Amino acid sequence: MPVNLVAPNPRDLHPVKGVALGIAMAGVRKANRRDLTVITVPAGAQVAGVFTQNRFCAAPVQLCRAHLEAAHGVRALVINTGNANAGTGDDGLARARSVCTALAAHLGVTAEQVLPFSTGVIMETLPNQRIEAALPAALADLDAAHWLEAASAIMTTDTLPKACSRQIPIGGTTVTVTGIAKGAGMIRPNMATMLGFVATDAVLAAGLLQPLLREAAERSFNRISIDGDTSTNDSFVLVASGQAGHAPITRLDSAEGSALREAVIAVSEQLAQAIVRDGEGATKFITLRIDGGAIAAECRQVAYAIAHSPLVKTAFFASDPNLGRILAAVGYAGIGDLDQTRIDLFLDDVHVAKNGGRHAAYREEDGQRVMQQSEITVRVDLHRGAASATVWTCDLSHDYVSINADYRS
Amino acid sequence: MPVNLVAPNPRDLHPVKGVALGIAMAGVRKANRRDLTVITVPAGAQVAGVFTQNRFCAAPVQLCRAHLEAAHGVRALVINTGNANAGTGDDGLARARSVCTALAAHLGVTAEQVLPFSTGVIMETLPNQRIEAALPAALADLDAAHWLEAASAIMTTDTLPKACSRQIPIGGTTVTVTGIAKGAGMIRPNMATMLGFVATDAVLAAGLLQPLLREAAERSFNRISIDGDTSTNDSFVLVASGQAGHAPITRLDSAEGSALREAVIAVSEQLAQAIVRDGEGATKFITLRIDGGAIAAECRQVAYAIAHSPLVKTAFFASDPNLGRILAAVGYAGIGDLDQTRIDLFLDDVHVAKNGGRHAAYREEDGQRVMQQSEITVRVDLHRGAASATVWTCDLSHDYVSINADYRS
Repeated sequence: MPVNLVAPNPRDLHPVKGVALGIAMAGVRKANRRDLTVITVPAGAQVAGVFTQNRFCAAPVQLCRAHLEAAHGVRALVINTGNANAGTGDDGLARARSVCTALAAHLGVTAEQVLPFSTGVIMETLPNQRIEAALPAALADLDAAHWLEAASAIMTTDTLPKACSRQIPIGGTTVTVTGIAKGAGMIRPNMATMLGFVATDAVLAAGLLQPLLREAAERSFNRISIDGDTSTNDSFVLVASGQAGHAPITRLDSAEGSALREAVIAVSEQLAQAIVRDGEGATKFITLRIDGGAIAAECRQVAYAIAHSPLVKTAFFASDPNLGRILAAVGYAGIGDLDQTRIDLFLDDVHVAKNGGRHAAYREEDGQRVMQQSEITVRVDLHRGAASATVWTCDLSHDYVSINADYRS
Repeated sequence: MPVNLVAPNPRDLHPVKGVALGIAMAGVRKANRRDLTVITVPAGAQVAGVFTQNRFCAAPVQLCRAHLEAAHGVRALVINTGNANAGTGDDGLARARSVCTALAAHLGVTAEQVLPFSTGVIMETLPNQRIEAALPAALADLDAAHWLEAASAIMTTDTLPKACSRQIPIGGTTVTVTGIAKGAGMIRPNMATMLGFVATDAVLAAGLLQPLLREAAERSFNRISIDGDTSTNDSFVLVASGQAGHAPITRLDSAEGSALREAVIAVSEQLAQAIVRDGEGATKFITLRIDGGAIAAECRQVAYAIAHSPLVKTAFFASDPNLGRILAAVGYAGIGDLDQTRIDLFLDDVHVAKNGGRHAAYREEDGQRVMQQSEITVRVDLHRGAASATVWTCDLSHDYVSINADYRS
């Protein structure tokens, strides 16, 4: 059961001018499953992407990087679920390239103008011929209103589709930002989502899209962790179709630029949080806020140590205020000169530990009360400086084990 | 159910001349539980210790370090289970010190000659008065034959006591090495055991014990991982009572020195592996062997990435040859210039992946056959150099979640 997450209402997902989405059944892994998505973007659109840091990155990730570097103007994205096309060597690259070539032929563009994405089981041969055979059906299905259908088609172990949308006024017109994402396991920072696609019809001057994408990733998909596993396929793509009709935004720190930034970050953050809320087996949504660091990097280090601790995660699952486990994780986070006698720990409003020891006024029943909640904020103050970091994570439950033990059966 | 581990036979645990162990019920956490152990060592014995790298180290770890630095000649170890005395601030230090002072008074030595150890729940006040009240009973119980009783008394979530013993001939006499350990969760390298105590009656020249301890730790307790959590209390202590009666060993690379080294390492390795075999919820014992690294450190890095991956661990639990998860973990282990097209993966004798892709001759049924086993060796060849590393770990099961969700209840 996802934590305080519901399926998006299609009425709330606004089309992005120039962007269309088509879905089909390719039978990648299972028959009668809408597992193939094509997204088309207009000529002149800008597209930027950030990808997994995993050195064992999948064939489609390698092609995406190469095609974006070629900079011939991306015109389509093609996404299959059911097979990750990772750990597949040269054969996997050839098969991903074949899918791009086939879609490019239908669209009258070059293969380098197509970005491929795959998600699913690793080290299995991609059935590219079945994907290519289904491309005409996906193209026939293209529609600017198909965001929710696409969000559903890219799911793997997700229990709910993830999509959201914002609209903002810019230069007398309405600009839309709409995005979808998938991912529920094999999720950790450095591209925590398996796949995220956000599109806007805003008009942007050259050179602004990549920094906007990086900031959005830094504040969303790179701030979540479910199980600490960095996927081979993580990809986050931002599309600016440029069709909203306002004068181009030339600076991200202008009023218009800031409005767009906030909308893109808000959509990305909501999608990233939705991934955690739908984390495999998750029963709790945990916000980790680390304050008082000398630098932000050490705050993130502490946050991830807590987020990745199986002992902390099982304690959340059990609603057991066994909060010393959090202190232990702070201690092994890798800050060499950490002074444990300065650490404060809060659970929501409850002051649990002060100066590295149990707070004199802390009562177990107060910790217990907060641990029962479905949403919990853990705050650690390192008292070393003024830097902060926030990371979102979930608990570790029996269902996580079941889902990952049974995933392929 | 531990993996291929049985309770030690007391007949196989040889006394170490000069070392006695006494156990008592102190009611630290539960009534009627033998939870207090005192180990006495003779005047002139050498004692060395290595401790957790966790910056949130427990009060007893802080005192152990201080007392060993004071170098007044350790005469006793006092160990309680049920309470870790970690995250307890100055109050915890005072209580641990009080236990040392009380035991020292009984023995007519100074508090600095006592090393305290605690294991159990974090951030709870140590009931030091109950411990001190039980010291006379523990002292009355002192006996050189009580190794198995001590191994049982230091257990927390362990399902079986862990102890083993070796005897070797040195200089016409028999030298004994006997050790005990406890730990089943919150286990990872940099002192993976919660507590390990190994004693020998060998006679050693000054300056040899600490390097011997470090080598033994490096090849045993620092090569295991259950859940990646580095405990606040990990301690590994090596005692040389010096009472075997042979001429002192003056070099570790002499024939006598090598024989002793091998025995100490074998005992430490067997204890460390026993901890993994009894890992919380473990159903499989996994040996990770990484070959072909440029340096040993990067081999360990890869081994730990695999060992800590919840996805890999749940696949082992399910006996599911979803082996791409291992490649993914290799990829995110943090080797920046890793070339995925050179990686080979073996599961026991089965060649699964070659040059970073599925091996042409690999058949799922072969992977399935090995995954069914209770003991599995995963071998990764990085093809970057001649360095190797071995790490032992276990799978992640439903029972791990149950044990850690229910630990305090």
